[in-house]
Amino acid sequence: MSERIITISREFGSGGRTVGRMAAKALNIPCYDQEILEELARKSGFTQGYIQEQGEYAAHAGWLSNALASRFSDGLTSQDRLWVLQRELILELAEKGPCVIVGRCADFILREKADCLTAFIHADMSFRAKRIVEVYGQRQDSPQKRLQDKDRRRAAYYQFYTDSQWGQARNYHIALDSGVLGIERCAELLTQLY
Amino acid sequence: MSERIITISREFGSGGRTVGRMAAKALNIPCYDQEILEELARKSGFTQGYIQEQGEYAAHAGWLSNALASRFSDGLTSQDRLWVLQRELILELAEKGPCVIVGRCADFILREKADCLTAFIHADMSFRAKRIVEVYGQRQDSPQKRLQDKDRRRAAYYQFYTDSQWGQARNYHIALDSGVLGIERCAELLTQLY
Repeated sequence: MSERIITISREFGSGGRTVGRMAAKALNIPCYDQEILEELARKSGFTQGYIQEQGEYAAHAGWLSNALASRFSDGLTSQDRLWVLQRELILELAEKGPCVIVGRCADFILREKADCLTAFIHADMSFRAKRIVEVYGQRQDSPQKRLQDKDRRRAAYYQFYTDSQWGQARNYHIALDSGVLGIERCAELLTQLY
Repeated sequence: MSERIITISREFGSGGRTVGRMAAKALNIPCYDQEILEELARKSGFTQGYIQEQGEYAAHAGWLSNALASRFSDGLTSQDRLWVLQRELILELAEKGPCVIVGRCADFILREKADCLTAFIHADMSFRAKRIVEVYGQRQDSPQKRLQDKDRRRAAYYQFYTDSQWGQARNYHIALDSGVLGIERCAELLTQLY
């Protein structure tokens, strides 16, 4: 595995997924995001909705809910099992050739396995709040509350499975503020650095 | 104050200062670094060596040494006094016009005062260890030990005076790994984004 891969970690609502798709299109390589969900659903039997939640976010109630979570006969929680499948799948995708992989700790999973450009996309709360309402619509909770919850749980998930800090600049080759620089500009920068 | 300014925060040994100088040269604007030391020495009466240490690094022994530190008649420690002078000087420099300012929490000091592009330059330990020996020569302590000490004290200084976390991607518009991307490439990216 030595193909050149772009991994994109991102804050919820920052447009990191769109940055990944735009960069992949410009480079004419695949961007894996929805495909990962579909493949994991096929392999695990979990629904895509469950995978979307459990494959990047710590459970709401934290350790307690984990301790009480249903376990498989091998002692793994369903979230642990999803992590194992997700890791295998990302390693397989990396073997196929150059690509962009969005989220799912791919930066960590591939850190010594492939030639990666690791990116982190973030933006301030007001930019993201506006964007999640445009993209995902209104919910009962305010956009700010939704973002705080997502940020906290994504950071906890990353910390738990990688033992390193999510969003720390030194963990990425490039980190960009999509709110200030613009989503298109971020995609251009990644394309150019590839 | 609305001039366009690049602020560069950097890990010791990452080449952030060189990135700043190269970008400033390409943009034909001044890069303030040594000038800040000289001006602060003139205003404060402290030596440049003292300012270089105390203007970006927490004291070695932490809180205890701070509690025991000599204080001026206004109750400020010498490090607090230096912070006040440094802050005033950076605000003055920002008023003069477009420029690059390296280090000294300029990103925080100018956060609502000027139109800034805030950058963070970092690199892994082996890149920085090699580089500090080339640039600053050998010392009694190993390069790794020197870097760990500098990183820890710089982070503590930043946290103390800005109440935010040094090196957290979301605090900067762009964060770059100079070890992977190369110092020249980092300078080009900043020049291009300016």
